Amino acid sequence: MHTVGIVVMSLDGCLTRHDEHGAEFASAGDQRFFRQVLTTFDCAIMGGGGYRAARDHILANRSEKHLRIVLTRAPDRYGSEARPGILEFRSDDSVDAVRNLAERGYARCALIGGARILTGCVRARVLDELWITLEPVAFGQGRRLFRGAVEFRFELLSTELLGPSTLLLRYRPA
Amino acid sequence: MHTVGIVVMSLDGCLTRHDEHGAEFASAGDQRFFRQVLTTFDCAIMGGGGYRAARDHILANRSEKHLRIVLTRAPDRYGSEARPGILEFRSDDSVDAVRNLAERGYARCALIGGARILTGCVRARVLDELWITLEPVAFGQGRRLFRGAVEFRFELLSTELLGPSTLLLRYRPA
Repeated sequence: MHTVGIVVMSLDGCLTRHDEHGAEFASAGDQRFFRQVLTTFDCAIMGGGGYRAARDHILANRSEKHLRIVLTRAPDRYGSEARPGILEFRSDDSVDAVRNLAERGYARCALIGGARILTGCVRARVLDELWITLEPVAFGQGRRLFRGAVEFRFELLSTELLGPSTLLLRYRPA
Repeated sequence: MHTVGIVVMSLDGCLTRHDEHGAEFASAGDQRFFRQVLTTFDCAIMGGGGYRAARDHILANRSEKHLRIVLTRAPDRYGSEARPGILEFRSDDSVDAVRNLAERGYARCALIGGARILTGCVRARVLDELWITLEPVAFGQGRRLFRGAVEFRFELLSTELLGPSTLLLRYRPA
């Protein structure tokens, strides 16, 4: 299974504006890219915070072509929203969740935040690529890409403009 | 006077690796670029921490063509190293320091960190451009580009490769 982390970030490394959930600062170009590119993945893993921020959109767009896994300490809380193979809530570690999807035969997995999921997957070397949309804003404070003191190295695969000042940077772990 | 912030940053928005001072993680390509580009500025402003990290190099390369201002709460401590017009230690606010250099007739000022200097200058709109070298590393923890909860917007001016995976991104405040 090919596993790709996909995030939108301010140029000073914030995934959120201050304490907000979600990424409302994402430009139209990034939102278009993200919607389109997600259709090329047959599964995605996200955290509970990200799910709650995008819940209405996700519930309105559930599809049998795409399994979403939400990692949360309290999966039972979401029992009424769960649909096996479409929207599943699990208390797994992110690396176990990736391995489980690979065993179930999924081919392309998008990791769509947050820091705990990405940090665990890079450290365990189950992340194949990291795609960062860099928006031309700075917030000073906000959620970050990785958690704790880490030291990861990457290689730049490509750069692309998604809008006049919005860059898509694709990396893979070195 | 044209004022440009120049930083090297990890792809997750750290100016330092964890608690280190200085930017030893900067690639050869960035170091070459930084040395070369500094010669196109007739003055530079930096913080006391950055000065202490690069002190030996700075003292060995003092030049009458280039004034360095070090902003520190204790300028008297550096009395023996100071040379008017070459290396000056001041307790000014960063915006006052920029205005003072403009009044003295300097033409191009490089702001070479840290967060307090850059945040003050963007907020006061005395920064004309921000050049970020994005290195393909991630540290999770480290000093950041801006201090406090801010909301700044920029426009992307150009992108350039300084090495196989090292990007130079030039922005200006929007």
